[in-house]
Amino acid sequence: MAAKARPTFTRREAPSEDGLSPASAARLRDLAPQRFVICDVAPEIDGGRYPAKREVGDELEVFADIVCDGHAVIAAALKYRLADAAGTPGSGNDGWSEVPMRFWDNDRWTGSFRLDRNARYQYVVEAWIDTFETWRRDLLKKVNAGQDVAVDLTEGRLLVDAAAARAEGADRQALQRFLDRCKEGEGGDLLPVLLDEELDRLMKRWSERVGLTRYGRVLEVVADRVKARFAAWYEMFWRSQGSDPTRGATIDECIARFPYVRDMGFDVVYFVPFHPIGRTNRKGRNNALKSGQGDPGSPYAIGAAEGGHDALHPEWGTFDDFRRMIRAARDHGLEVAMDFAIQCSPDHPWVKEHPDWFRWRPDGTIRFAENPPKKYEDIVPVEFYHPDGSPIVEAWQAWRDIVLFWLEQGVRIFRVDNPHTKPLPFWEWLIRDVQDQHPDAIFLSEAFTRPKVMKGLAKLGFTQSYSYFTWRTGKQEIIDYLTELTAGEPVDYMRANFFTNTPDILPKILQEGGRPAFMQRVVLAATLSSVYGIYNGYELCENAAVPGKEEYLDSEKYQYKVWDWDRKGNIRDWITALNRIRRENPALHEYDNLRFYNARNEQILLYGKMSKTPVGGGRANFVLIAVNLDPFHPQECRLELPLWELGLPDWATVEMEELFSGYRFRWTGKDQHLWIDNNRPAFIWRVTPAT
Amino acid sequence: MAAKARPTFTRREAPSEDGLSPASAARLRDLAPQRFVICDVAPEIDGGRYPAKREVGDELEVFADIVCDGHAVIAAALKYRLADAAGTPGSGNDGWSEVPMRFWDNDRWTGSFRLDRNARYQYVVEAWIDTFETWRRDLLKKVNAGQDVAVDLTEGRLLVDAAAARAEGADRQALQRFLDRCKEGEGGDLLPVLLDEELDRLMKRWSERVGLTRYGRVLEVVADRVKARFAAWYEMFWRSQGSDPTRGATIDECIARFPYVRDMGFDVVYFVPFHPIGRTNRKGRNNALKSGQGDPGSPYAIGAAEGGHDALHPEWGTFDDFRRMIRAARDHGLEVAMDFAIQCSPDHPWVKEHPDWFRWRPDGTIRFAENPPKKYEDIVPVEFYHPDGSPIVEAWQAWRDIVLFWLEQGVRIFRVDNPHTKPLPFWEWLIRDVQDQHPDAIFLSEAFTRPKVMKGLAKLGFTQSYSYFTWRTGKQEIIDYLTELTAGEPVDYMRANFFTNTPDILPKILQEGGRPAFMQRVVLAATLSSVYGIYNGYELCENAAVPGKEEYLDSEKYQYKVWDWDRKGNIRDWITALNRIRRENPALHEYDNLRFYNARNEQILLYGKMSKTPVGGGRANFVLIAVNLDPFHPQECRLELPLWELGLPDWATVEMEELFSGYRFRWTGKDQHLWIDNNRPAFIWRVTPAT
Repeated sequence: MAAKARPTFTRREAPSEDGLSPASAARLRDLAPQRFVICDVAPEIDGGRYPAKREVGDELEVFADIVCDGHAVIAAALKYRLADAAGTPGSGNDGWSEVPMRFWDNDRWTGSFRLDRNARYQYVVEAWIDTFETWRRDLLKKVNAGQDVAVDLTEGRLLVDAAAARAEGADRQALQRFLDRCKEGEGGDLLPVLLDEELDRLMKRWSERVGLTRYGRVLEVVADRVKARFAAWYEMFWRSQGSDPTRGATIDECIARFPYVRDMGFDVVYFVPFHPIGRTNRKGRNNALKSGQGDPGSPYAIGAAEGGHDALHPEWGTFDDFRRMIRAARDHGLEVAMDFAIQCSPDHPWVKEHPDWFRWRPDGTIRFAENPPKKYEDIVPVEFYHPDGSPIVEAWQAWRDIVLFWLEQGVRIFRVDNPHTKPLPFWEWLIRDVQDQHPDAIFLSEAFTRPKVMKGLAKLGFTQSYSYFTWRTGKQEIIDYLTELTAGEPVDYMRANFFTNTPDILPKILQEGGRPAFMQRVVLAATLSSVYGIYNGYELCENAAVPGKEEYLDSEKYQYKVWDWDRKGNIRDWITALNRIRRENPALHEYDNLRFYNARNEQILLYGKMSKTPVGGGRANFVLIAVNLDPFHPQECRLELPLWELGLPDWATVEMEELFSGYRFRWTGKDQHLWIDNNRPAFIWRVTPAT
Repeated sequence: MAAKARPTFTRREAPSEDGLSPASAARLRDLAPQRFVICDVAPEIDGGRYPAKREVGDELEVFADIVCDGHAVIAAALKYRLADAAGTPGSGNDGWSEVPMRFWDNDRWTGSFRLDRNARYQYVVEAWIDTFETWRRDLLKKVNAGQDVAVDLTEGRLLVDAAAARAEGADRQALQRFLDRCKEGEGGDLLPVLLDEELDRLMKRWSERVGLTRYGRVLEVVADRVKARFAAWYEMFWRSQGSDPTRGATIDECIARFPYVRDMGFDVVYFVPFHPIGRTNRKGRNNALKSGQGDPGSPYAIGAAEGGHDALHPEWGTFDDFRRMIRAARDHGLEVAMDFAIQCSPDHPWVKEHPDWFRWRPDGTIRFAENPPKKYEDIVPVEFYHPDGSPIVEAWQAWRDIVLFWLEQGVRIFRVDNPHTKPLPFWEWLIRDVQDQHPDAIFLSEAFTRPKVMKGLAKLGFTQSYSYFTWRTGKQEIIDYLTELTAGEPVDYMRANFFTNTPDILPKILQEGGRPAFMQRVVLAATLSSVYGIYNGYELCENAAVPGKEEYLDSEKYQYKVWDWDRKGNIRDWITALNRIRRENPALHEYDNLRFYNARNEQILLYGKMSKTPVGGGRANFVLIAVNLDPFHPQECRLELPLWELGLPDWATVEMEELFSGYRFRWTGKDQHLWIDNNRPAFIWRVTPAT
């Protein structure tokens, strides 16, 4: 083979961007300014697709991995602003505030800002090379190694020069003064001038941010009001709050019940739907297919001649009564939550007014709700899309306007019935739209379905979520589930509101375990989560079930009912004490601070919570809880007292104050013994170091 | 307070989008069509910011969580195309191919496609509601429950109607035939017609994809050639391959060494830099600050009067020789890898030609490389940014063109020296640019730095990475590190090329452990990773170190050297056998199939690999490896023979074929005993069920 000449290196002598392909030139332009790899930012939900959730008053702690080439000193900042602030990232200041981030560990950085307002915030991470700090660090190393640094000092002065040109106001003059001192020192000792700490502070502000890189996605966090995280709900079947078993209770009879609810220590009183109830195919007692004379029907079969979702059930009261009730609740320190159930009785006015919001079958009949082979004869589902797949905008707007309507009537909390059977994008749109105007609106997702659907609803905007708590009764399954909820991936976007029972769910443990189970389960709900609820009758230990089912016998859903609220064996005192303990202990106001401890008995659950901020005496509030999960027998165990949480050694002595009883004692050492009666199945201790 | 009238529900009777705020209307438009939440897609690196990596011939398995509201039957597809395909997502077919995804578990779906080409692919997940399947499922439930389904059948026929209108070609006619049969059956039995499986197949193709949602990010995967994953490297100091200790070896002397390298079973022969070496501040033997007469200098001080990165060291040879060498390597089944070190001797031609590509100090001198207080007097670093922070486009292009230049000379593999001290965006741009033209180019990142910097380099495009393997010698640390690499988050983008040693690293275990350590470490490198390398002299067990350091004494980096390749005590046979075993066992060609097993001795590491696809006899290739980590003593242990990997019970008998020795025996039962000499410190067994 003939020898070839030395090949020519083909690079152009004076290459311009023309020498690059358009794609290459574009990439160079995009990539070159961004000197850093910033990744694993937390919190970040699904690549920034959904906002994280926190509450007003929280510090939002943000973490990010930040790496750069080389050995320069780098700096990073967390930028944040209200999501509705003017401007878009990139142009000018854009309303961003900035806090420095600090090195955490292993190229991970952290910074935080306070969520002062009930609003949606944006945040993003930036990193850059701090040229002056790099120069300063290297200079000191050389000085310490006894090297000649004359040229280095000149380089430093030039950095100050550039910063002075960039600086404004008094800072500019201050930098100029340092430059003047440099001139005086010329040939002499620049070192003390350039290492002056005041200069360092000025340079942090004004030196150029070299290689400034902004994380590729602007993230969002919704700061809900605190009640989104900390509240005790009391669910009330409005028509059962009176004393006449032949008719539904009135609003005034409900108002009369508020002192009872308030005295038990609840914050939220939640009403099942209070709209007119359809007559077509009305359900009878115990979900009978045919209703009897005078049966009131299920309140979830919404809509009748008297009106639909914007109307009050005529038996209950008028809008004057309703507004009076909202005020009365407020006066009692209660807040009203209402049910938002998007489904209609066939008698709902909208069925006639907006036939295109419902689905009609080829035989001209309306489609009823069904889950084949099951049929729901008293309700028809609502459509959100035209047959061609386009959204029925009018219907979306109408349902949103129903929420806005009740917000105008003073309701701020909506428990949403079965959201998982309505389009996910509808909820994302509705909640965002409503909260843009009413950031204090709270939406509780009543979805008992597959875990990822429940998480999806939480991500797309629901403030709170129902949970599987109702069925988690074994020690290990409670630990596993709570660890997932409060320390796992969902913690940034999902708040589980723990209901002990609902009108649809009388769980087996309550049916079988009786009063001890009721006492146990309410303690678990109220202390494992920071937000929980009971459905009326729970305090009376009502547990008559339809045989073989988790349903209440003679359920209020299908008939009038009158309760004896002073019924023997009730646990009102227990619940009252529990809610008092919750209020008095900031540790129990928080959701993500749960930790499980070692109790050597499969029937005893031991856990604790520590408040994030100090309370009295500069010390955090630490609460330890032990629950006997066996409703039938007392249980005892050896346990590991978590002295380490208080920074104490294994042999320390602590003051234990049991908060139900007020009983105080001291425990010394980590290894302790415990006995819990099933008839008083929980201890809640405030633990403090003995003095 | 005066009673107010019943509030008016303020929704407009015929709301239009005008009734919504612009933001709300825009959100509705964006959100409404996307009925699904699709999340946790894997592989996805940093929210799609970086591509995943696989190799030609692999199936890319993609997973995604897919949820929708309601109870409809849903379907999902994985779409993919070459990244350079025309069109952008959304307009027409865009060159996408599609494969159905199947339900995996817990709302997780999976699908895969084959990476047929050495190219960059895009992929994305789509999900939709399958209306016909939903109808079909519900119909069957109703039929089974004995319900009347007359109207349901009509509904089904209407679905077929709509699909027929949408269908094309023969499918349209086939659908029409079903409709005709429906007409015949009218009043009669539509059921068998509409449940026909052929109709079902047609409907899968032509029914409307309701609520079609595309995952928000189009993801990418780079399919490298297989050598990116499976190769054995031999690093060669070109000037030490001859027999005259007073001069550097020539290219022809290097070519003469190829049979030796090939016979040992290596695939890649990698040369340290072979460019002209600077004279200014040239280093002497053992890194002495002053070079002696005739000292050749460090090959990393690149550039002299004879040329820079586009030149060959005159002592080595000409471009004719070089091209001949490339051919010779190919003829021997070897591939040449070269060093790409972006740094210059002060004598590099570009220092004069392009002074703005270097940094000059205020006193007019060039800035030398330094890591204060350390100085590197024989090299100057290269700049990538102008003092104003803008990129020196000409320099970026020039360095890229150096790579393109050597690609034109036939080199396809680049070992990149210290990439972490050059800007990260530069590498991302360069590698993308080069691979767009030469997808077969392989870049090995020689970064021994902090873990997240190494991961960052891998993410942004490096094909392979150096690793901490060289210093991982204890059993638990090997298990932890390999588990992270081969089963952790980096596995989708990082391939660790395990070097036993390098010209810069003679690890302590080799210094102290001698020949048994050399035998042990090369087995670990070659079987824990699928790609590994040794640096010449390893096979001779060369371990004379600078006292107290991990550096070679009389390192080739600073002096001419001549080796006796037949030196007594060499382990060439061991390495030859090892590379043969690697070639013959497909399980060892893979990177992410490593599993550790139980050996009850802290000095014995037991692990295995199973091929993904069956080999001979329809059975996967399963290799089990035991290594004695103690170079000083024989070790023995009880071990758990992983019979379960072959689907065998604990009492099964297997055929064990030891692949170094060829010795065959049978083991029965899971609990076995093992003894390993330190002088023959590894067993590699092919395990098959006994017949």
